[in-house]
Amino acid sequence: MIEVEIKARCSPEIRKKIAALGSRMLGVENHLDLYFNSPLRDFARTDEALRIRTKEEGVRLTYKGPKLDEDTKSRREVTVRVDDPEALTEILESLGFVGSGTVKKRRTKYALGEAVLCLDDVEGLGTFLEIELSGDEDWSVQKREAQELMAELGLTESIRRSYLEMLAEKDPATDHLDRI
Amino acid sequence: MIEVEIKARCSPEIRKKIAALGSRMLGVENHLDLYFNSPLRDFARTDEALRIRTKEEGVRLTYKGPKLDEDTKSRREVTVRVDDPEALTEILESLGFVGSGTVKKRRTKYALGEAVLCLDDVEGLGTFLEIELSGDEDWSVQKREAQELMAELGLTESIRRSYLEMLAEKDPATDHLDRI
Repeated sequence: MIEVEIKARCSPEIRKKIAALGSRMLGVENHLDLYFNSPLRDFARTDEALRIRTKEEGVRLTYKGPKLDEDTKSRREVTVRVDDPEALTEILESLGFVGSGTVKKRRTKYALGEAVLCLDDVEGLGTFLEIELSGDEDWSVQKREAQELMAELGLTESIRRSYLEMLAEKDPATDHLDRI
Repeated sequence: MIEVEIKARCSPEIRKKIAALGSRMLGVENHLDLYFNSPLRDFARTDEALRIRTKEEGVRLTYKGPKLDEDTKSRREVTVRVDDPEALTEILESLGFVGSGTVKKRRTKYALGEAVLCLDDVEGLGTFLEIELSGDEDWSVQKREAQELMAELGLTESIRRSYLEMLAEKDPATDHLDRI
């Protein structure tokens, strides 16, 4: 499945505009994301990601392929639910994968038509809005829809860097490897 | 955790001897095991294993480290439950892992003291008994216990090869890569 995704920095006040568009709040999640790098190729160069996400609802392992275009974060994503993040970390490390960083955030999710709006308070970075739509082979419609929605909210930026990359740029001395 | 494990070829008739020892039958499981090899090192040489097991109760990913001694199959094992074997296969393949074979078997499990006895009917190979005990750093007690139990059942053999290796030896032309 293709995850069409646009991200922009915003003010926490944007939640009023999101509400005014007629969105429905889906809930609040606290994410602890552990990222891993491959022993085979540097995911920072190949633009891939391997992540264990722990949130209230449970734990998931996600692989993200390289971004598919030049102006959004759209990419192939595959996810499985798992029951034990520590055992999974031990398996990944046994296979040669190396922890590359941790991202903690509080995500407020809204539904608006087919789109999911994620308002993220990211520890150490600030507030961001991500607009997500699921697509298949032809995801140009979803991409345009997400871009139009961003514009309606007064946001014209499109950040393609991950929170992990942004944290590393902000503070290169820290490897953001603190664990649970 | 260390999984102390001894395996021997046997006749299906051994179930009478297992019952006579006072064991308790735990149940019957049908296993479909998909094995993967690493792009980094050949698991056939390093004596590791990565497996997705699908059985009635659910799906699990297991990593097995190299065997720890010269006369049993004892090794470190780490396991997580997952919800979707096909998505997990897609993630592993995206990370460079390659399917190396499939093993199908019907396992009848018995409890006898701390030991679990697994009577396996393996498709294409025949019937085997595996005696399993969990140990920690000092697992010599568990190893002796498993060996004595094998001897009580009249089995002196100790096969250290996996079913996957035995299938490959039996029929080198087939890579046992048929999928679900």
